[in-house]
Amino acid sequence: MPDTIPTDSVGLVTPQTQHFDQPLTLRSGRVLPSYDLVYETYGELNADHSNAILICHALSGSHHAAGYHSMDDDKPGWWDSCIGPGKPIDTREFFVVAVNNLGGCNGSSGPTSINPETGEVYGPDFPIVAVRDWVNSQARLADVLGIEQWAAVVGGSLGGMQVLRWSIQFPTRLRHAVVIASAPRLSAQNIAFNEVARQAIAKDPDFHDGHYLKHGTIPKAGLMQARMLGHLTYLSDDAMRQKFGRELKEGRLNYSFAPEFQVESYLHHQGEKFSNSFDANTYMLMTKALDYFDPAADYNNDLVACLAQTQCRFLVASFTTDWRFPPERSEEIVNALVHADKDVTYACIESESGHDAFLLPIPRYLAIFSAYMQRVAREVNV
Amino acid sequence: MPDTIPTDSVGLVTPQTQHFDQPLTLRSGRVLPSYDLVYETYGELNADHSNAILICHALSGSHHAAGYHSMDDDKPGWWDSCIGPGKPIDTREFFVVAVNNLGGCNGSSGPTSINPETGEVYGPDFPIVAVRDWVNSQARLADVLGIEQWAAVVGGSLGGMQVLRWSIQFPTRLRHAVVIASAPRLSAQNIAFNEVARQAIAKDPDFHDGHYLKHGTIPKAGLMQARMLGHLTYLSDDAMRQKFGRELKEGRLNYSFAPEFQVESYLHHQGEKFSNSFDANTYMLMTKALDYFDPAADYNNDLVACLAQTQCRFLVASFTTDWRFPPERSEEIVNALVHADKDVTYACIESESGHDAFLLPIPRYLAIFSAYMQRVAREVNV
Repeated sequence: MPDTIPTDSVGLVTPQTQHFDQPLTLRSGRVLPSYDLVYETYGELNADHSNAILICHALSGSHHAAGYHSMDDDKPGWWDSCIGPGKPIDTREFFVVAVNNLGGCNGSSGPTSINPETGEVYGPDFPIVAVRDWVNSQARLADVLGIEQWAAVVGGSLGGMQVLRWSIQFPTRLRHAVVIASAPRLSAQNIAFNEVARQAIAKDPDFHDGHYLKHGTIPKAGLMQARMLGHLTYLSDDAMRQKFGRELKEGRLNYSFAPEFQVESYLHHQGEKFSNSFDANTYMLMTKALDYFDPAADYNNDLVACLAQTQCRFLVASFTTDWRFPPERSEEIVNALVHADKDVTYACIESESGHDAFLLPIPRYLAIFSAYMQRVAREVNV
Repeated sequence: MPDTIPTDSVGLVTPQTQHFDQPLTLRSGRVLPSYDLVYETYGELNADHSNAILICHALSGSHHAAGYHSMDDDKPGWWDSCIGPGKPIDTREFFVVAVNNLGGCNGSSGPTSINPETGEVYGPDFPIVAVRDWVNSQARLADVLGIEQWAAVVGGSLGGMQVLRWSIQFPTRLRHAVVIASAPRLSAQNIAFNEVARQAIAKDPDFHDGHYLKHGTIPKAGLMQARMLGHLTYLSDDAMRQKFGRELKEGRLNYSFAPEFQVESYLHHQGEKFSNSFDANTYMLMTKALDYFDPAADYNNDLVACLAQTQCRFLVASFTTDWRFPPERSEEIVNALVHADKDVTYACIESESGHDAFLLPIPRYLAIFSAYMQRVAREVNV
């Protein structure tokens, strides 16, 4: 709840909705006959439309990447640390577009939307979407906005996967790809964590096979557990040790099953908050998109061959204590790009904050990100 | 299901039950008026009772550490790789005692036992037990068996915590402490994983606040999820990559929420199997004992001061890819012992198997463990 909007903020922003009537054939073979995409923009599109940046969000993100919706907001958009005047993605130079992905629960068509074919809420009947489906839908939004080529497509985590997919799927439609804290595909361990989270939701009796809205229920306990587990994997052991250690909530052990350690209370709080605002079917869909992402699979598992067709330049960044997508996973991307003779800049940033580091204002991270984006800006026609 | 018992097996074994009528005051302040301990023994106690080894089990272990209960068993006890003729804990030299801990569900008094004061099943009313309570109860069993001093107390993971507690609580009652894949206390991350697992159980509507037996139900889904999560943390990312990679169950993506990747099926299978054989209240209790274990807390968080009073010699072992209790956690114990001027041997074993490595016949592990135990054996009077 800012008393005044900070000077390095994009300020008050208003989401926009774009409706698409042209059917979208999905990776699964299913077809979305029509759909909405909700998005926000920050900064001004220049005369030749060469200064546009696309922001791709991760699992629980949305189109609200920066600024405030109202003076009553208690916090800004999810990547406000990196988007704004004077920030790495400098809105004095760039026109920034942030989209809520299909299947989301923040306004774009998803499980909580009305299925135009039945007049009822989609619920679990909303089709499972893949990263390439998001990229196709984002390309259509670019068409509507008159953006033939992005100056850069940028994202962290699952957002970074969309960036990679953009570079492969529309090689001429972006000049730069910024892939942060991401991976070329999930490991078995990553998939396993997602499946445990999905099971927590699916086994909640209030889930009703995804038809909870029809039943007037919400699988709150399951969603809370899924988020607790997810949150746990976004933080590093070090970060949790520093933040909580073995601190006790009431200063003493109670020998009961109520949360006793601060870290338990914190996770309960995070899970509780999330379960009040996020849609369970969307969570299921987003984790599936993560599991499925594997662009090299179409190239006989050869990531070099897969990335050989890209034409943009790359910034890849990772964080030392990220154990969800550790530096080695980013380095797989970097190595493949080098072998494919592509132009790639790589930074592994020291941080104790685990996977969540990509959202934080870590000085060296901001410095490198800014320097790279300034290079992108210098190529833009003023 | 061995056709014949292998020659390096302890063979067919029969559990024994010891009843205790002397009340046991627990760490929590509650009192167990009477209780049973179930245990197995392998090998022969020598004339002066100097060759006895106590085996302490981990979260899901039991007194059945080696050998077979019948020719129909499809697998031997949980640490058969390390206990038997010619194995590290050589039953030709040692008399081995393995106890099911209080609160367990394999015969020792626990939530599935009858509360002698009410004539009903304990369920969630079985008191929360701490590692020190187990050690006190094991000491009483030692008294009954006529074992004044163990040649060694040995355990991995939560078992290793019992070993540490033995060395602190009864310094003169053991000559050697073997602490494998353990930690001096849980980290915030460890506690967080336990709490997510407990929540999975507690939020299962079949849990009924722990009174599920009275309700004729079993919180199977919750226990399954808890085990899936636990199992996931016992394996390394590398081990899962090698074992499953991104292999698909049916060779293709189905775009559904049923398990598609082999790793998902594997975890479902493990969770399913466990949920059919383990008691949910016991799982809750065991994870709490893990959370509470923190012997240095009584010494102003000074592990050196805490371990200064020990009188035994130590073997500490860790495994490179164990991320539940990584080598650094074992090294905290080793460093404290060195600073306390104690005799400690430390081995960090190369392994791709994560935390579970301590149960596996890894050649360098078996060699070091055997060499150390031969040293223990040489001190025993024949």
